[in-house]
Amino acid sequence: MTELFTAADVSFRRAEAADLPGILQLLVADQIGAARDGGELAPYQRAFEVIDADPAQLLVAGVQGEEVLATFQLSFIPGLARRGSLRAQIEAVRVAESLRGSGVGSQMIRWAIAEARQRGCSLVQLTTDKRRQDALRFYQRLGFEASHQGMKLFL
Amino acid sequence: MTELFTAADVSFRRAEAADLPGILQLLVADQIGAARDGGELAPYQRAFEVIDADPAQLLVAGVQGEEVLATFQLSFIPGLARRGSLRAQIEAVRVAESLRGSGVGSQMIRWAIAEARQRGCSLVQLTTDKRRQDALRFYQRLGFEASHQGMKLFL
Repeated sequence: MTELFTAADVSFRRAEAADLPGILQLLVADQIGAARDGGELAPYQRAFEVIDADPAQLLVAGVQGEEVLATFQLSFIPGLARRGSLRAQIEAVRVAESLRGSGVGSQMIRWAIAEARQRGCSLVQLTTDKRRQDALRFYQRLGFEASHQGMKLFL
Repeated sequence: MTELFTAADVSFRRAEAADLPGILQLLVADQIGAARDGGELAPYQRAFEVIDADPAQLLVAGVQGEEVLATFQLSFIPGLARRGSLRAQIEAVRVAESLRGSGVGSQMIRWAIAEARQRGCSLVQLTTDKRRQDALRFYQRLGFEASHQGMKLFL
């Protein structure tokens, strides 16, 4: 017997307004993201409403009861490439520190891939910070290829 | 005097249905994309209608008169990060072979950055194929940082 949670304990569903504080906790707890986020709730509530109202956006909460332990956002982007198919994009992936290595992250990304397939996407894409070698290997194990440079310009 | 077109000859605007064959010509002429695209027009027309109807998508044509010589797609993605700000994403960048090195590409990306800024985005992002070293340097000159791995999984 072990005290570690197993992936089976976490279920994934569309995020609700009540999940927002828990999701923000995961965003703020994140080492690289910490310097960028934080502060009052109101701008995040407005952003949540925009995301929630947009059928091309799916913000997901991984929960145990009412506790949010993992999150990510899936965006569906129409394009002309590959005979005009949709691409799915994964952003803002976070798993609670206590659940690292438990398999919850893999389960969550597989959930995202299944959702993308169900919506008829031809491609799932994401970018991961080059400082996170463990994240690179994590996504490679799930079948992603690091074929591209991910480039950012802050305005 | 030179026969080369200068960037000033190309103007950028929202793509119209009549631009679609010219845009597809650029997609198909592209070396890496060639194996992926091509075939009949109908699926592309349907995809164009979806993109055109979506306020979060901006497909752009760079034209001289009625001739499409450059194209890209800009997507506006809402998120919780950075106090709930929009990010802009550049995809499907193509410039006609005859205009490579003319400055049209730089002009086009600067146009995209200005549009992103005007819509209140905090970030512009893109991925570029690692086989394209010239594209990497091109975007670096425009201020983009290759801080991330761009990962893809085809379904």
